[in-house]
Amino acid sequence: MKQATDTLRVATRGRGLFEITAKVSPWVTASGIATGLLTLFMRHTSASLLIQENADPAVMRDLERFFARLVPDGDPLFEHRQEGPDDMPAHVRSALTQTHLCIPVMDGTLSLGTWQGIYLYEHRIAPSSREVVLHLIGD
Amino acid sequence: MKQATDTLRVATRGRGLFEITAKVSPWVTASGIATGLLTLFMRHTSASLLIQENADPAVMRDLERFFARLVPDGDPLFEHRQEGPDDMPAHVRSALTQTHLCIPVMDGTLSLGTWQGIYLYEHRIAPSSREVVLHLIGD
Amino acid sequence: MKQATDTLRVATRGRGLFEITAKVSPWVTASGIATGLLTLFMRHTSASLLIQENADPAVMRDLERFFARLVPDGDPLFEHRQEGPDDMPAHVRSALTQTHLCIPVMDGTLSLGTWQGIYLYEHRIAPSSREVVLHLIGD
Repeated sequence: MKQATDTLRVATRGRGLFEITAKVSPWVTASGIATGLLTLFMRHTSASLLIQENADPAVMRDLERFFARLVPDGDPLFEHRQEGPDDMPAHVRSALTQTHLCIPVMDGTLSLGTWQGIYLYEHRIAPSSREVVLHLIGD
Repeated sequence: MKQATDTLRVATRGRGLFEITAKVSPWVTASGIATGLLTLFMRHTSASLLIQENADPAVMRDLERFFARLVPDGDPLFEHRQEGPDDMPAHVRSALTQTHLCIPVMDGTLSLGTWQGIYLYEHRIAPSSREVVLHLIGD
Repeated sequence: MKQATDTLRVATRGRGLFEITAKVSPWVTASGIATGLLTLFMRHTSASLLIQENADPAVMRDLERFFARLVPDGDPLFEHRQEGPDDMPAHVRSALTQTHLCIPVMDGTLSLGTWQGIYLYEHRIAPSSREVVLHLIGD
């Protein structure tokens, strides 16, 4: 049994979903682990992780429309607005999605379904640099 | 330290919550692992996983009522509707719930609380066949 | 490779977010595991787990305001109300947040970002006693 760890740095272009599957898969392959468990951990509270359909780009636009309506920027409900009208909404969107994901590895490959991709969801309007910790255990 | 993996196939009868605890628990016991970590991973983006109260069936009906109101089928907000009015709502419901669950195993048993059950949440209206990957590591 | 498990008991003072990072971190250090994966598992369906910003207490108040508006107590939509108007809302809030969290451990420390804290989110109005299972695997 062995472990591999790394930190993935992702430059986001502002709010939206960025697919990171192609950054993660080769790292899993390179580890030489055939059977195991991959964990991705987002080291921020205004960006999050999500597994979603990666076939139709409209899914990403619709997800963003849904969250924009559910958690409106500048909502007078929110007290915490030091960093602007998208500050607290970014924290709420993160609470409603995932800070971490675990994906089993089988035959040296992520056991994602045919249409599944791994996404980083940037919730701030401004571009940002995000860190995702990768941890893999198995043999 | 050892690992066990499997794929659980669940036939859903359309939208709603299906308890799968009784399919998962015996598999954990059969693995012979006394202390470890179980991961369940849903290989789809229009069905998800959830741990919920399994005592009163009204909890499941109320959860479904809540999600039906929060993410209405046929919402004109959504562009992605190839597979019908429940297509994009199924993706949004999945984003708001879980694609994976991890449950520690202690004394050869899932460490679920007294009232907790593991549920597959089918978000499409039509019956479907779903795959859940099981991964267990421990000794 | 080794494992450590424990059960953390947290007395909540009613609805709200309680930071538990300071209860979890020393336990990880004491395990002597330098590289590994920590899992926290909530053994209840009316309280949940969350990683959030721990710098400004207003974030916690805003999160609670958001969930109170999204899932109102006493909503006539809900059938399950044996334990009062906050009973079913507590289950829905749990479904929208996390029953478990996984956090990689590197250099003997949780790989949390600078502003991240681990929170127990009590969704019932009355104070309660909650159990969180801790599982750590690594070497």
